[in-house]
Amino acid sequence: MLTLHFAPQSRAVRSLWLLEELGLPYELNHMAFHPSDLKSDEHRARHPLGRIPVLEDGEVMIFESGAIAEYIVDRHTDGSLKPKPSDDNYPAYLQWFHYCEGMIMPPINTIVVHTILLPEDRRDPVALGQAQRLLGRALQVLEEDMGDRDYVAGGFTIADTMIGHAVLMSERMGIVDDNFPNLTAYAARLKQRPALQRAFEIEQS
Amino acid sequence: MLTLHFAPQSRAVRSLWLLEELGLPYELNHMAFHPSDLKSDEHRARHPLGRIPVLEDGEVMIFESGAIAEYIVDRHTDGSLKPKPSDDNYPAYLQWFHYCEGMIMPPINTIVVHTILLPEDRRDPVALGQAQRLLGRALQVLEEDMGDRDYVAGGFTIADTMIGHAVLMSERMGIVDDNFPNLTAYAARLKQRPALQRAFEIEQS
Repeated sequence: MLTLHFAPQSRAVRSLWLLEELGLPYELNHMAFHPSDLKSDEHRARHPLGRIPVLEDGEVMIFESGAIAEYIVDRHTDGSLKPKPSDDNYPAYLQWFHYCEGMIMPPINTIVVHTILLPEDRRDPVALGQAQRLLGRALQVLEEDMGDRDYVAGGFTIADTMIGHAVLMSERMGIVDDNFPNLTAYAARLKQRPALQRAFEIEQS
Repeated sequence: MLTLHFAPQSRAVRSLWLLEELGLPYELNHMAFHPSDLKSDEHRARHPLGRIPVLEDGEVMIFESGAIAEYIVDRHTDGSLKPKPSDDNYPAYLQWFHYCEGMIMPPINTIVVHTILLPEDRRDPVALGQAQRLLGRALQVLEEDMGDRDYVAGGFTIADTMIGHAVLMSERMGIVDDNFPNLTAYAARLKQRPALQRAFEIEQS
């Protein structure tokens, strides 16, 4: 049985969403996004820095949302939601999968630090503005590439559970707006997926 | 023919190193790490933000060093340097591959900004110190996991061209030092690889 060690408002939603997309049986360890849970000895035994998501599968304990996505489809499906290397969409699949953590998430993390995590008197409006502009530029590359495609690499893939989640975060932050019509349509398309709706419901439960 | 669009002192070294490891024929577009090359119209047609590496393979143009690594082994080898999903080392391979951009590179990027990229009067010693501590903590997780293994996932894999490169950068920044004996040994092991030595020579040529 797969166990997902989870907390809301985090990258762990990506793994929950994927499990729901695949309809795989799993157990959820639903922790609070709070040091009392995440920095506990129990959770630090899973991830020494107390991060989530962590996936447990028998003897296997694995962290990093991208690694978990690949692990789940490679070990627990017969190749669902992942183009084959010979597929024409394979380069786009790889590129946008990795672009998520490489280019989109670093400015998102900075924005979270300077709008939520730090106490107000330590937030830096200069650092925040730089991160917002950087995020906008990084998203513009995807906006132009997307055109009117439904998903980043043809059909829905695990790359969408990664960068799609980052686009949804960017929309909530007010960066993806009317200036990003393709990404706005993409975000709306993702939000119509029943598996993502279930993941959001579970997140808030 | 594969063409690697490259500039020194960047993640593009990872792709060059991998091509040398595999002994694949390739052409190198050796640009300067300077806006005159990277922000040129010619290079922006390859990557709208003028980043490197970019790999060109006939009609395919792909960026992100992690995506390029997977693309090269999946399309141009019969599975070299990448464990099979059934391999016991597969979870570690995936985890450390993704940990590179997820946890190690964000503080490295911040350190580069506040020690090299910004003019001295705009560098922030507080942001620098935070990033240095964060990098040390993120590396400590790998240090403890490594033990006396030779590479992050058993034999040498493309995960080593990613996170191994990040460990070498961290050593140059003075973060990986005597307090990280396993990572210091790992870095020394990587530097003995002829393919990495050739990549460094080409980088400086």
